[in-house]
Amino acid sequence: MALRLHAQVNPASLQAAEFDAARWQRWVAEGAGAGVIATHSADPSDLDAALAETEVLFLVGSAPLHDLPRRAPRLRWVSSSSAGVEWLLKAGLPPAVTLTNASGTHIPKAAEYSLAAVLMLNNFIPAMVTAQRAHRWAPRSGGTVAGKRVLILGMGALGGAAADALAAQGMVVLGNSRSGRPHPSVMEMSRGDGFRSQLPRADFLIIALPLTPDTHGLIDRAALDLLPPQAGVVNIGRGEILDADALAAKLRDGTLGGAVLDALPQEPLPADSPLWDTPNLIITPHCGLYDPTAYAERCLRAFFANLSRFRAGEALHQVVCLDRGY
Amino acid sequence: MALRLHAQVNPASLQAAEFDAARWQRWVAEGAGAGVIATHSADPSDLDAALAETEVLFLVGSAPLHDLPRRAPRLRWVSSSSAGVEWLLKAGLPPAVTLTNASGTHIPKAAEYSLAAVLMLNNFIPAMVTAQRAHRWAPRSGGTVAGKRVLILGMGALGGAAADALAAQGMVVLGNSRSGRPHPSVMEMSRGDGFRSQLPRADFLIIALPLTPDTHGLIDRAALDLLPPQAGVVNIGRGEILDADALAAKLRDGTLGGAVLDALPQEPLPADSPLWDTPNLIITPHCGLYDPTAYAERCLRAFFANLSRFRAGEALHQVVCLDRGY
Ligand SMILES: NC(=O)c1ccc[n+]([C@@H]2O[C@H](COP(=O)([O-])OP(=O)(O)OC[C@H]3O[C@@H](n4cnc5c(N)ncnc54)[C@H](OP(=O)(O)O)[C@@H]3O)[C@@H](O)[C@H]2O)c1
Ligand SMILES: NC(=O)c1ccc[n+]([C@@H]2O[C@H](COP(=O)([O-])OP(=O)(O)OC[C@H]3O[C@@H](n4cnc5c(N)ncnc54)[C@H](OP(=O)(O)O)[C@@H]3O)[C@@H](O)[C@H]2O)c1
Repeated sequence: MALRLHAQVNPASLQAAEFDAARWQRWVAEGAGAGVIATHSADPSDLDAALAETEVLFLVGSAPLHDLPRRAPRLRWVSSSSAGVEWLLKAGLPPAVTLTNASGTHIPKAAEYSLAAVLMLNNFIPAMVTAQRAHRWAPRSGGTVAGKRVLILGMGALGGAAADALAAQGMVVLGNSRSGRPHPSVMEMSRGDGFRSQLPRADFLIIALPLTPDTHGLIDRAALDLLPPQAGVVNIGRGEILDADALAAKLRDGTLGGAVLDALPQEPLPADSPLWDTPNLIITPHCGLYDPTAYAERCLRAFFANLSRFRAGEALHQVVCLDRGY
Repeated sequence: MALRLHAQVNPASLQAAEFDAARWQRWVAEGAGAGVIATHSADPSDLDAALAETEVLFLVGSAPLHDLPRRAPRLRWVSSSSAGVEWLLKAGLPPAVTLTNASGTHIPKAAEYSLAAVLMLNNFIPAMVTAQRAHRWAPRSGGTVAGKRVLILGMGALGGAAADALAAQGMVVLGNSRSGRPHPSVMEMSRGDGFRSQLPRADFLIIALPLTPDTHGLIDRAALDLLPPQAGVVNIGRGEILDADALAAKLRDGTLGGAVLDALPQEPLPADSPLWDTPNLIITPHCGLYDPTAYAERCLRAFFANLSRFRAGEALHQVVCLDRGY
């Protein structure tokens, strides 16, 4: 019997345009092998009918995946084109369904964005942008990043890419992960709560964690208070990990030097959010790590390589551990 | 007879605080050798008396240097702590006076600033800052800088530093100078007016030229029109080289993607300048290339090395050619 494979694309996703039917069918033709019936839809109302048959579901953006045991009796594998899958875990996958994500697909862009963000903070760009709004000529200069310390929370695909890019500029990279596993670009790794003893030494903090019950609200006022005065903060993980109100208060009272946020507490950020006007803060609307010229190809290559493993009964790559939440 | 050496510090200069009397006298004690009478002042009203005696004048920031043959009969060498000396040339130095500058002292910061500026442009940061002012969630993504083309006008200390930093990110660097002399980080050099045939291929343009009669107004509307749509522009040279009104018009009508300016047409930029509110433009108030933690030491080291050459009758380094203007 043919394997039923379905791609469901949420048209509201930033990635939607690149994961079009033509590209999907080209990859199916070249990468799926014989005996596969592959469908593609960017229409949310097609989801129910597709789920009824699908064994392998490829998802671009979010989709209403509640009540799967009843709606998708044949489902065995869900593959997300995103790295963050917290919403999928909340939906509750049946235990027999394997979940894979796209962790690793962002690496080149994550490296560049992290470098750009730290260089902006080191060069007071958020402060200058704030002064520019007020038509204020307010020069500020400092030393280069070489020798300064950056602490990266989450040393997976994103954190590792950031560490490599920043170590290449001569920075001292401190890292934190659940395991504390060493990384060649990181001078000092900590694990779990150990990052708190690193915060006071961090000229810059980069949050590259997944959103899990453990990381939700992890970087709160108390954590931010441990940073040295004038430190800079970058969030490329998820908005819910960082207390944005506490951050904004510290930017307003000048105890933090600046911040660059790609992940926001609410997305899209409502027009009346006070974050928009927070001084010394630059917001990139969750687009900084996405590369429309390369992402879809890279992601589909990894997915179809996984599909070969799946059909051969081999272990998949990029598997999300449902217990850990990433 | 003792050599008369005087440092005149303009208190309005960004560098003034770092070139204080204590640092100056420490360098004099360690670096000047015997037989030197060295003075230092940050008070403009001391200049006239100092000029009457001085043979070697070390300048931080600008000073009123008109009528030197009469006011400074013994003057043989003026050393500026800046790289740009166009104002000094305008003042008209007596032909027997040698002029040296601080070209080269900015290198590490010029490298970092150029990298930061190009990464900001490549990641649409100026556009996002503009959207942020309007509370608009407007994601924009693109590819990494690797393989993209940057054209650098002026391949001296600044341009060379930028070329190295950007080539290290995998960019294709095109360069232009008066001589067209090759540079290891530059794929294709042009000379003189040859940059016009490079402009249409430049994803990013960096102006790192000195201000001279030849470069005044060089990057006008016609030159900017040669850039491809959505190109980004950086000016780290001097404001008068770039027609800022033409640039602003092209940023407003969307034919250029963004700009980052450290050098402005008027400095300080008046509060009522329309540049402050130009969309997709980030202004750093002529402070982006200055490193208060390292500049003065580096600059004084070079100056006192030159002083040894001067006393030994050897050729000086960093000599400005009065005819070329840099
Ligand atoms: N802004 C964007 O557009 C964008 C793009 C991609 C991803 N993201 C977000 O970034 C997250 C990370 O992506 P990734 O691909 O780097 O994930 P990943 O490769 O799975 O790495 C996750 C890292 O976080 C660490 N970690 C997890 N829980 C932790 C905890 N409680 N305390 C300390 N460290 C913890 C892990 O530790 P171990 O190494 O010990 O397992 C691992 O190093 C994603 O989940 C997603 O939400 C955002
Ligand atoms: N933003 C800041 O804070 C800051 C800091 C430092 C300097 N600056 C400005 O940047 C300028 C350059 O500094 P630098 O230290 O790099 O100077 P530099 O080492 O003297 O280099 C000047 C470069 O410009 C080229 N050039 C001169 N006239 C030209 C023309 N008409 N057409 C094409 N190329 C021309 C020269 O060509 P050749 O190689 O053939 O001689 C050389 O490559 C300074 O004069 C200063 O105004 C600004």
